[in-house]
Amino acid sequence: MNKYKILIAGGDMRQIYCAERLSKEFEIRIIGFDRESIPDSIKLSFANISSTKKYDCIVLPVSPIDDNGNIYTPCSSENLHPKVLQGLLTEKPFIFTGQASEKLKVAFQNAKFRDYLQSEELNIKNAIPTAEGAIQLALEELPVTLNGLKVLVVGMGRIGSVLVKILQGFGADISTAIHSPRGSAKARLFGVKTVSTKHLGTNYDLVFNTVPKLIFDRNILERFNKHTLFIDLASKPGGIDFEAAHDFGLKIIWALSHPGKTAPVTSGEIIAETISSMLEERNDDIE
Amino acid sequence: MNKYKILIAGGDMRQIYCAERLSKEFEIRIIGFDRESIPDSIKLSFANISSTKKYDCIVLPVSPIDDNGNIYTPCSSENLHPKVLQGLLTEKPFIFTGQASEKLKVAFQNAKFRDYLQSEELNIKNAIPTAEGAIQLALEELPVTLNGLKVLVVGMGRIGSVLVKILQGFGADISTAIHSPRGSAKARLFGVKTVSTKHLGTNYDLVFNTVPKLIFDRNILERFNKHTLFIDLASKPGGIDFEAAHDFGLKIIWALSHPGKTAPVTSGEIIAETISSMLEERNDDIE
Amino acid sequence: MNKYKILIAGGDMRQIYCAERLSKEFEIRIIGFDRESIPDSIKLSFANISSTKKYDCIVLPVSPIDDNGNIYTPCSSENLHPKVLQGLLTEKPFIFTGQASEKLKVAFQNAKFRDYLQSEELNIKNAIPTAEGAIQLALEELPVTLNGLKVLVVGMGRIGSVLVKILQGFGADISTAIHSPRGSAKARLFGVKTVSTKHLGTNYDLVFNTVPKLIFDRNILERFNKHTLFIDLASKPGGIDFEAAHDFGLKIIWALSHPGKTAPVTSGEIIAETISSMLEERNDDIE
Amino acid sequence: MNKYKILIAGGDMRQIYCAERLSKEFEIRIIGFDRESIPDSIKLSFANISSTKKYDCIVLPVSPIDDNGNIYTPCSSENLHPKVLQGLLTEKPFIFTGQASEKLKVAFQNAKFRDYLQSEELNIKNAIPTAEGAIQLALEELPVTLNGLKVLVVGMGRIGSVLVKILQGFGADISTAIHSPRGSAKARLFGVKTVSTKHLGTNYDLVFNTVPKLIFDRNILERFNKHTLFIDLASKPGGIDFEAAHDFGLKIIWALSHPGKTAPVTSGEIIAETISSMLEERNDDIE
Repeated sequence: MNKYKILIAGGDMRQIYCAERLSKEFEIRIIGFDRESIPDSIKLSFANISSTKKYDCIVLPVSPIDDNGNIYTPCSSENLHPKVLQGLLTEKPFIFTGQASEKLKVAFQNAKFRDYLQSEELNIKNAIPTAEGAIQLALEELPVTLNGLKVLVVGMGRIGSVLVKILQGFGADISTAIHSPRGSAKARLFGVKTVSTKHLGTNYDLVFNTVPKLIFDRNILERFNKHTLFIDLASKPGGIDFEAAHDFGLKIIWALSHPGKTAPVTSGEIIAETISSMLEERNDDIE
Repeated sequence: MNKYKILIAGGDMRQIYCAERLSKEFEIRIIGFDRESIPDSIKLSFANISSTKKYDCIVLPVSPIDDNGNIYTPCSSENLHPKVLQGLLTEKPFIFTGQASEKLKVAFQNAKFRDYLQSEELNIKNAIPTAEGAIQLALEELPVTLNGLKVLVVGMGRIGSVLVKILQGFGADISTAIHSPRGSAKARLFGVKTVSTKHLGTNYDLVFNTVPKLIFDRNILERFNKHTLFIDLASKPGGIDFEAAHDFGLKIIWALSHPGKTAPVTSGEIIAETISSMLEERNDDIE
Repeated sequence: MNKYKILIAGGDMRQIYCAERLSKEFEIRIIGFDRESIPDSIKLSFANISSTKKYDCIVLPVSPIDDNGNIYTPCSSENLHPKVLQGLLTEKPFIFTGQASEKLKVAFQNAKFRDYLQSEELNIKNAIPTAEGAIQLALEELPVTLNGLKVLVVGMGRIGSVLVKILQGFGADISTAIHSPRGSAKARLFGVKTVSTKHLGTNYDLVFNTVPKLIFDRNILERFNKHTLFIDLASKPGGIDFEAAHDFGLKIIWALSHPGKTAPVTSGEIIAETISSMLEERNDDIE
Repeated sequence: MNKYKILIAGGDMRQIYCAERLSKEFEIRIIGFDRESIPDSIKLSFANISSTKKYDCIVLPVSPIDDNGNIYTPCSSENLHPKVLQGLLTEKPFIFTGQASEKLKVAFQNAKFRDYLQSEELNIKNAIPTAEGAIQLALEELPVTLNGLKVLVVGMGRIGSVLVKILQGFGADISTAIHSPRGSAKARLFGVKTVSTKHLGTNYDLVFNTVPKLIFDRNILERFNKHTLFIDLASKPGGIDFEAAHDFGLKIIWALSHPGKTAPVTSGEIIAETISSMLEERNDDIE
């Protein structure tokens, strides 16, 4: 089998680090970046639009198309239209992206789309930079140490588990709020106190929410101390009534997009590893 | 809704502790135990066979029927035939057991069978006594401390994860052998070294296997030091070629049934909690 | 025995939080702060200079006197001269401060000086905000996760031990550099790899130094990767040749004063707890 | 300098493992062991009593002399009198032992005695096998998992700290009883609850005592549940009133001598490492 030729098209610095990691295994070209936006230590080649070389795969950013119908290229001063990419592809290419819109499917009719955000591998691995970014926020915002702090972690899924593990290293006083026998069993494993999401106490200094369900409604928020810091890591619409929180003067940070910003290298490498696993599984599909 | 009337029939000490825990929520009677086999501190009532009271549920041991067709009653000097139980049940009872054989289904034709071994809750929780039992074995068998020991944990599922967490507390020098991107992601979370199950090294003092696949075949076992201790926690047929191991003089302990023996109270309570969750979910089914 | 009357004079926000904590046990007044510099949630009374009330103790900041001979009062727009304090004291007062200079001893001739920086209790407790502040710096500076990162911790004293514990929670790949059998024994306890400070490798992404001895000289620094981040927590002159590091383009952060800034509440409370313990031990000295 | 010639004389299996480890650095002979008591895998030479070879050092067991005035040799069927050793020594030999009695000093008048039990290195390292042995006892004795168990650790010295670290890996519900600001600070670091030794609660399933002071007197013991297991690791006379405990039917295990038994290899190696460090420091003393 031939080595894949892969084109990394647009996106932020994560895609650059993704490209660098993939270049250890595959033939990689990039497009949609200004040369100055790339650190000197990174050696990557730009795609030559006028060449006849064809690519087997394109890697697009999570949200690939901007409002004007161009590829999302925050690291480039020029626009990149999907049409430019069409001429660079083999007949049945793979397109890796976060979510393939109808527009995108029309633009690349022969392509097979792969959503790397759906990969379990990526989601487990991404829990780590997400949790670390949240811990960084807490350290920056709070005038006290995490050691000894009364912390509530809502949800014992991937992100919740990583948070608990990190907080135990700090020696925080951790409680977890769980809503299933499964979550309860996982909390038991970590040796932390559990409360039911239905009977939450309010005596915490710091709350991490990871559950995308309205748990912190006006009634509950009203009873919290004003010094409590809330960090919401749940996907939209999050788990906290922001308006009510605002009314009570509570501080809330919605931080799900944080990981890409605080650890772009790791985030980019995780995307690369996921794409690499996906291509490996699919070796049979391509002749 | 009425409180369930539940009959605990046979099994080892775990079933006694299961009965005790369930008696906090339900009306419980036991059968298939000698009075002397029950610790003084436990207050449980025996079922009266001649009474007209009917039970909604029976809890049977994991392997309910012995070779003679009787209920498995290791804590009783008398036999207990399934027929005896039939007369004690309501018309559409629930039967909780590990695996319902055809024989059993014939014996209780109107019953709905529930396999508590299939519960995810039970399996997550059971990982804990299983792992603790394995650690106890290692402590007993080895003339060295777990601290600093070169340990290989094969598999990062439930039991593997608990083992890694405990071994980190001891300060062991842990490697994990993994065979999927998912396992690799979990090992990363715990911060332990990983090797592929395809390229195992052999320089370990202690190996815990949790994967029910023949990983340690004659070729690999031949290269291990003779002092290495293997503890196999995988369900049958385990992951180690016992005959080859025997030929090479390696010490192997097959330890899956261990947890019930070393922590019968916890094991019994886990069964009770699982049955309680199952009944809660099923409240609608019974009128 | 009477409750002590204590005057908190000058210093930064830590002294305010120190005052607040002490006010739970003692009669506290403050001086050397602008009213606006104190958060609304904190209830503290200012000393009345013209009153005849006398104080048994003064708490001064760590470096009590500024270059002009005034008390160090960064939270005040007015100067505070030691003479002002003299009139407020009992005949044989206690003065708590970091280091009593000759000038200070002359200014308060009848006072007994107590250096709270010398307290073992304070030093153990301070290791926590110091280590947390260093971790925060690392999270902010690095574009990668701490999880999986190759980290070297130099020294296994108080700060080194806390760093190792926190980094284990993150799942970092930790080595410790030690220079005594005692340090080696402590590293063994935590289950981390050790290298001798005499034979340091250079393949690390992040280095925390806690040893106040020149370990990272020109020869060693030359061999490090340029991306390595050094965080020096040793008291002056630190353990890294800054000039050489600068020549090689290495990034170094000297971070010992960090904890007071990132966790002023905890730092202030630690000072308060230390002073409280010191007063308790000394109850016999005062009639 | 010449390589030391060292004679290992008597003691249990720990001394054999000590000899093996020392033989990597020094010239080692053993005496006071039956050949059959030594595992096949260990290669050690016996001292030849009639040879003219002289030894620079002797390593004796912790309690070197038995009631009959012979060297303590539990692994030998023959007696070994100190006189036999005298003829094998250089003029000013070193004697390593646990505690040099007057009798011993008379028997070896020219010798310098070194008490390896006083070494801080040994004491830190020994905390590990001691704690692991105690955990093994708890696993063996208790019918429940350590996970979730209410455990009290009395004292946060070396052994207490290792116990807490291991128990955290198990996910136990840990409290520590402390009696100094220093212990309190260490407990804070580990993130565990603290109680004062003066106001102990009694609601625990398992108690590890490491403090050699009578903390558990008749008054306190009376209030404990009968199912509580006490493991006393304090040096004599321990911290528990055994008679009172017996009267109340409480189960107590006095376990300080345990580590040598459960991890003799590690214990022997720790003695060897300590002796090696002691000889290194003393290189100047011997010409």
